[in-house]
Amino acid sequence: GRTSRLAIEEARKKVAHLLDCQPSEIFFTSCGTESTNTIFQAAIHSLGCKHIITSPIEHHATLHSAEVLCKQFGIELQFAKHDAAGQIDYNHLEKIIIECSQKGNTFVSIMHANNEIGIVNDIERIGNFCKKEHAYFHSDMVQTVGHFPISLQKLPIDFASASAHKFHGPKGSGALYINKNVSINPYILGGGQERNMRAGTENVAGIVGFAAALNFANAEMETENEQTLQLKNYCLEKLQNAITDLTINGTVKHSLPRVISVLLPINDKSEMLQMSLDIRGIAVSGGSACSSGALGGSHVINTISATPGVPLRISFCKWNTREEVDVFVAALVDILN
Amino acid sequence: GRTSRLAIEEARKKVAHLLDCQPSEIFFTSCGTESTNTIFQAAIHSLGCKHIITSPIEHHATLHSAEVLCKQFGIELQFAKHDAAGQIDYNHLEKIIIECSQKGNTFVSIMHANNEIGIVNDIERIGNFCKKEHAYFHSDMVQTVGHFPISLQKLPIDFASASAHKFHGPKGSGALYINKNVSINPYILGGGQERNMRAGTENVAGIVGFAAALNFANAEMETENEQTLQLKNYCLEKLQNAITDLTINGTVKHSLPRVISVLLPINDKSEMLQMSLDIRGIAVSGGSACSSGALGGSHVINTISATPGVPLRISFCKWNTREEVDVFVAALVDILN
Repeated sequence: GRTSRLAIEEARKKVAHLLDCQPSEIFFTSCGTESTNTIFQAAIHSLGCKHIITSPIEHHATLHSAEVLCKQFGIELQFAKHDAAGQIDYNHLEKIIIECSQKGNTFVSIMHANNEIGIVNDIERIGNFCKKEHAYFHSDMVQTVGHFPISLQKLPIDFASASAHKFHGPKGSGALYINKNVSINPYILGGGQERNMRAGTENVAGIVGFAAALNFANAEMETENEQTLQLKNYCLEKLQNAITDLTINGTVKHSLPRVISVLLPINDKSEMLQMSLDIRGIAVSGGSACSSGALGGSHVINTISATPGVPLRISFCKWNTREEVDVFVAALVDILN
Repeated sequence: GRTSRLAIEEARKKVAHLLDCQPSEIFFTSCGTESTNTIFQAAIHSLGCKHIITSPIEHHATLHSAEVLCKQFGIELQFAKHDAAGQIDYNHLEKIIIECSQKGNTFVSIMHANNEIGIVNDIERIGNFCKKEHAYFHSDMVQTVGHFPISLQKLPIDFASASAHKFHGPKGSGALYINKNVSINPYILGGGQERNMRAGTENVAGIVGFAAALNFANAEMETENEQTLQLKNYCLEKLQNAITDLTINGTVKHSLPRVISVLLPINDKSEMLQMSLDIRGIAVSGGSACSSGALGGSHVINTISATPGVPLRISFCKWNTREEVDVFVAALVDILN
């Protein structure tokens, strides 16, 4: 028991150090989704929020929590607007934050970077505005923890969610940041684990793996971002040269270096595209992996784009090569023709 | 993605086979506590239960869920009575089930076996009574899955919770059984994992480990129960011969073969007992491991026993030996004298 406890506390210290916050502000969960669920229920039941603001292109962990809980407990739900590139309309967001805050306790949840189109939001600007208007702010940082340098101490946020498998850590291991100035009740009730913030026997291996993977990821962050950005630009250029009528989703400037999101023209070949690529050993996705197998396309692409098309998300990591990009683009062209 | 999915579905089939139910009735969670939390919120929000019945000696996952949610949503909470041995008063339980069921939808949660005193409840009797009175029945089977032969198909229960680390599986890996005739909403909202019943990227290793450990446990169940029961009886006899004023908690007849719970007379030596044994390399507990480090003693012992004393839980597994029992009892006597 003591060995396990020590391993967990060492992991907590390491994660806190890497994200620049206090160990007492880090809580381990079973995934980013659980972290987000914890914060949404706390916003309503611990912080008495009567108004929730989010964006229609958030991850389903956020969207479904917002929709289900707001309906269940009679909470007002507002959505920030986006332009066709997926960029948040900050003026509109700030307008609804003011409106809601004047009416009562308000909770704002905006992700740091979008998992499908890779667009990066200015959470410092949003957090500062929330602070000014006394609204609580949560950021789903699942895409950026382990990929961007992050100082939770300096960021004006109350809560953040992270997930280990997003930076090559184990699946089913997440973390939740709760700023020391905010106090909430736990979501999963029972034993006194995680200083009474998250009951249940701890996934010790997952927790140790979270910290170890984040340590590696942070150390290699700069190199990896450079490498994947080069691959991304190389792939984008090849795609644009090879395929006419290609739409690129998300502004290329403020987006994750490792994600490309495109829309391909609809025809009988593009509709079977993912499967055709899969047969050739190439793994790309149509949307979020959390919705794999689901029909109806991507809620993110459907929200921002009126262009009909087949969405394709291409992701890179440090282990991908230019040769793989060549094989991928050649396969794509071959299938489409 | 497909490899992971296949591994999860193979695990689900294996677990369903071992617990004699359908694969579609098994959902993987992050722990038994999450399983129990899922069912409590579903009882209130999906099944519209206005009356909850449980026992004061349940695990904190059950007790805290019951207490917090009943207070939060104005639900009536009733507790079954127990005798001084920890045995449930079935007549009283049945009386309150009838009373509640006449008033509205009722949810009953009674554990199969108690984690501290090892007492085993007749969940078949309770389940049949619930069925007759149209009450929903959940059993926390964390102590018995992997230890007793279980047929979920034959047991008259709607929901059951299990946890892998209780049968030498990985920590942070649980399962939830939902009878095919009952439909509830998920607790953790987001992606479509676990057929929309539990969002969040799956702990694939934990899930595969759950199934593998259960497979081993079920195969060795009979031998292990025989071995641990022999150790338990040997230890009890030695303890009773060595220590006067020893109280045994829980009826010895209907209890887990692997658990002994005793009360030792209070004095300056017994109060430091756990730590003194720990220094000698002997691991015993004062109560639930989920409350380790917490003050205030065991809620289970405090509920059933008016006798003041220092509680000690001694647990065996197939890897313990008679020689270890000798060393333990000798150390105990040495410390107490």
